[in-house]
Amino acid sequence: MRRVAVVGAGMTRFGKWMDKSLKDLGREAVDTAMKDAGVDKPQIEAAIVGNATAGLITGQEMIRGQVILRDMGFGGIPIINTENACASSSTAFHLAWMYVASGMYDCVLALGVEKLYHEDKRRSFQAIGSAVDVQAIQELLKQTAARGRDDAEKAKASSGGAGESRSMFMDFYAAGAREHMKRYGTTAMQFAKVAVKSHKNASLNPYAQYREQYTVEDILNSPMVAEPLTRLMCSPIGDGAAALVLCSEEKARQLTTKPVWVTASVLGSGKDRAPGEPGVTTRVANKAYAMAGVGPEDIDVIELHDASAPAELMEYEELGLCKVGEGGRLVEEGVTEITGKIPVNPSGGLLSKGHPIGATGCAQLTEIVWQLRGEAGDRQVKGGDAKVGLTQNGGGMMRGEAAAMTVHVLER
Amino acid sequence: MRRVAVVGAGMTRFGKWMDKSLKDLGREAVDTAMKDAGVDKPQIEAAIVGNATAGLITGQEMIRGQVILRDMGFGGIPIINTENACASSSTAFHLAWMYVASGMYDCVLALGVEKLYHEDKRRSFQAIGSAVDVQAIQELLKQTAARGRDDAEKAKASSGGAGESRSMFMDFYAAGAREHMKRYGTTAMQFAKVAVKSHKNASLNPYAQYREQYTVEDILNSPMVAEPLTRLMCSPIGDGAAALVLCSEEKARQLTTKPVWVTASVLGSGKDRAPGEPGVTTRVANKAYAMAGVGPEDIDVIELHDASAPAELMEYEELGLCKVGEGGRLVEEGVTEITGKIPVNPSGGLLSKGHPIGATGCAQLTEIVWQLRGEAGDRQVKGGDAKVGLTQNGGGMMRGEAAAMTVHVLER
Repeated sequence: MRRVAVVGAGMTRFGKWMDKSLKDLGREAVDTAMKDAGVDKPQIEAAIVGNATAGLITGQEMIRGQVILRDMGFGGIPIINTENACASSSTAFHLAWMYVASGMYDCVLALGVEKLYHEDKRRSFQAIGSAVDVQAIQELLKQTAARGRDDAEKAKASSGGAGESRSMFMDFYAAGAREHMKRYGTTAMQFAKVAVKSHKNASLNPYAQYREQYTVEDILNSPMVAEPLTRLMCSPIGDGAAALVLCSEEKARQLTTKPVWVTASVLGSGKDRAPGEPGVTTRVANKAYAMAGVGPEDIDVIELHDASAPAELMEYEELGLCKVGEGGRLVEEGVTEITGKIPVNPSGGLLSKGHPIGATGCAQLTEIVWQLRGEAGDRQVKGGDAKVGLTQNGGGMMRGEAAAMTVHVLER
Repeated sequence: MRRVAVVGAGMTRFGKWMDKSLKDLGREAVDTAMKDAGVDKPQIEAAIVGNATAGLITGQEMIRGQVILRDMGFGGIPIINTENACASSSTAFHLAWMYVASGMYDCVLALGVEKLYHEDKRRSFQAIGSAVDVQAIQELLKQTAARGRDDAEKAKASSGGAGESRSMFMDFYAAGAREHMKRYGTTAMQFAKVAVKSHKNASLNPYAQYREQYTVEDILNSPMVAEPLTRLMCSPIGDGAAALVLCSEEKARQLTTKPVWVTASVLGSGKDRAPGEPGVTTRVANKAYAMAGVGPEDIDVIELHDASAPAELMEYEELGLCKVGEGGRLVEEGVTEITGKIPVNPSGGLLSKGHPIGATGCAQLTEIVWQLRGEAGDRQVKGGDAKVGLTQNGGGMMRGEAAAMTVHVLER
């Protein structure tokens, strides 16, 4: 397979943009990425677009990417729409990488775009609720309904029906957090410290949805979502877009003196870890480390999928940054601060930069590109000398398993 | 790029399957394709799933493929969901081909699956209506509504709002047909002969949704949809699934003595033809011919996107089977009959085999695999001696342009 470089990246600020459409958000990210790459539309040979909820929120299914890109003036190129829940646009990036790596095209656009806010909030929640096995949940509800109304309500509350998936996901994360506390002595204070770090980093990031800083007490005292998760430990709803331009080595050399190489791009799915057994993140990360020829000790900066604060600690372990059970210690010691040995989520992560589902993957990759080029401003890690970055992005859940998990390694 | 072979293919019968879910249909097609390939689940390293309407019809977005495949017992593999309207699953096949051609994986599954029938018919029509630029149409409706209710109704009727897209597409095809009649002297009788051929072929195909035969008079006398299109000249709504297993050359040699090689896989989008200018089908087909090193004169059998009967005649011209304007003559002379020189849609095509949107692409490819292996039963072309086959599959429409167009060349 050929070497592939990122030559341009861009994103909108994440936030609540009631007056911006999916087209507006997509256009802003694509324009910025192309300007950054110094390419014009005729140079883009293909595009892959990741989006998760537009079908259910706006009614636009089937040709979501075309609707955005054709409107911008792209014409005649192959456009592929991809959907993998919260990993939709890292999947799009993976396919764009594949198009270039295979030799099929020399210059490909990857776009992640999402508009979760809608005047009718129920639509947003219903759409997010499709990141699970909808049929299985409907059947479960039907069965329990036959046993009585109370049971049905309980089943709905515990399994998450349409409209309650956000809390279902948070219930799932909360259960994992409680298990981690019990098994390894991890504390709610440590989870809070992750959230403090994320919010502090986001305060330095002009693209972040929430830029307020908080103390450990603020985090612990914010409303409880599901023990031990408080609201400030959970990723918010938001709108946004991010885009990247990927090129062959030859093309990249023509376009830029600062190519960022994609040295690993791996997609997987499957079971979370069990005692003694690696989970999907570890399995996918190990493949990516092997593909890039690096180990966790070589990584200078990471953007990972902190849909909740405890998830970040567990992912430290799963990515091999520390031993199993030591995630809490890592955040206590400041290892993953912007100033630490392995900065994690300098952007503010899903918690504070925000989590417009289908935009998150490309936004993580955009942050790593900026960090490796030394262009991350106030939140720059390693004094601009970071050489190897990693992203981890998960999506969807069924039978307690991740429906999609991507790990990318980028190097300059 | 590496050589890629299809080693297994399978499909459900297309039809109105009110008692079968998306999972049931997907399972049947995948089981059949894997049995045909002689592979077990552990050998499948990745899967790409094409579907167009499940989000709006069943509420299942984001992880449609995982929901089907995990339920069947697939675990831990990369699964990618792709959406390109009526070309969703030829796009899935294109990506599966890319995965193998690039060297990333040796054995990949492509699945197309669609359930259009729903107890509430409005859902089906609303879902199909998302194959256009929904926002643009809503804005158009808003503008015209401001000018009065009658105008709004007219705009809705002519542009196709949610719930009226099928007729909008047929209006578009009808306008193209009238233009062809005017410019080249093509007749309604010739369109009817395409439909007679399709229905005759479908009568020989146990997988076809409609197996009745009709005379030219039956076709012309069936209810008028949009002048000159009668109902029997239009593709129906339906449910179904089709799947294929793609392998590297080495793996294919281990598995089968009848590999079918994918010698071209091209996706594009863009404008239809204008006088003196080739349209998207021609541009994509020419790329595919160049990639495979063949010309239209080498093709032994074709499955093409006859969403309406006149479309088939125009595609003869666009694929280079005859000169522009001569499509009518081709069908008159029987050239595209199963017994003719270039059999087209021996399966019965979209018109009669059926058109469950996201299943169509993989179903076309399945038919060509069977034809090239000499396994097409009563509808077998060239006495089982066909060597080169082609599929053409279009999807979605905006500004009168195709949002997606694929052409594949398969050879044995």
